[in-house]
Amino acid sequence: MEILVGRQHGAPNFAMRHYVVEPGGHTPHHSHDYEHEVIIIDGEADVTYGTSVHRIRAGDVLFIAPNQMHQFRNVGAGPLRFLCMVPTSFDCGKPTPGS
Amino acid sequence: MEILVGRQHGAPNFAMRHYVVEPGGHTPHHSHDYEHEVIIIDGEADVTYGTSVHRIRAGDVLFIAPNQMHQFRNVGAGPLRFLCMVPTSFDCGKPTPGS
Repeated sequence: MEILVGRQHGAPNFAMRHYVVEPGGHTPHHSHDYEHEVIIIDGEADVTYGTSVHRIRAGDVLFIAPNQMHQFRNVGAGPLRFLCMVPTSFDCGKPTPGS
Repeated sequence: MEILVGRQHGAPNFAMRHYVVEPGGHTPHHSHDYEHEVIIIDGEADVTYGTSVHRIRAGDVLFIAPNQMHQFRNVGAGPLRFLCMVPTSFDCGKPTPGS
C-alpha cells in the first residue's frame, strides 16, 4: 500500500491510497469504524461485502460503509490495482491507520 | 461532472467525482475553503496552482490545499479525465457544492 495523499502531505479530511494485490492474493476480511471509497484501476476481483460477493473489474466504484465486513480477492491473471480513500480520522479524532 | 460516491450514497466524510474536460477547455480559475485530491486518468493538462503552472498527465496525483487558486486546462488532443475528491462539508458543517 502506498499513501498518495495523506496526513504527511497536510490532507485535512481524507487520504488517497494505492493498493496492489497479486493474483490469488487477498486483503484482510475485516471491518472498521470508517468508510472506504474505492475505484478499481486494473484487474478483476471478488469483493465480499457483508454476506454477499460481487465480481468487480477496472472502472468499478465501491462505497464500503463503516462497520461492514469486506474483503478484496484477486481472481484475475494479473495484478489487482485499486485506489482506496479513507477519512484521516474517525471516532471523534483518532488518526485512521494508513492515512 | 459526475458524482461517483457522495452524500446521496451516504458518504459521511468525502465525495469522489469524475470530471471530463474537452480539448482546449478548462475548469474555472478559482479557490475555495476546502481541499481537492485529484488523480489524472486520461489526457494532459496545464494546472495553475497559486502563481505556478505544472504540466501533468495520466497517473499524476495532486493535492490542492484549501484557499489556493487553481485551474485545469486541457492541452492534449483528447479528453482530459480526472477524479477529484472533496470533503462533503466545510466551514463547520456547510455542505460542499458537488458532493
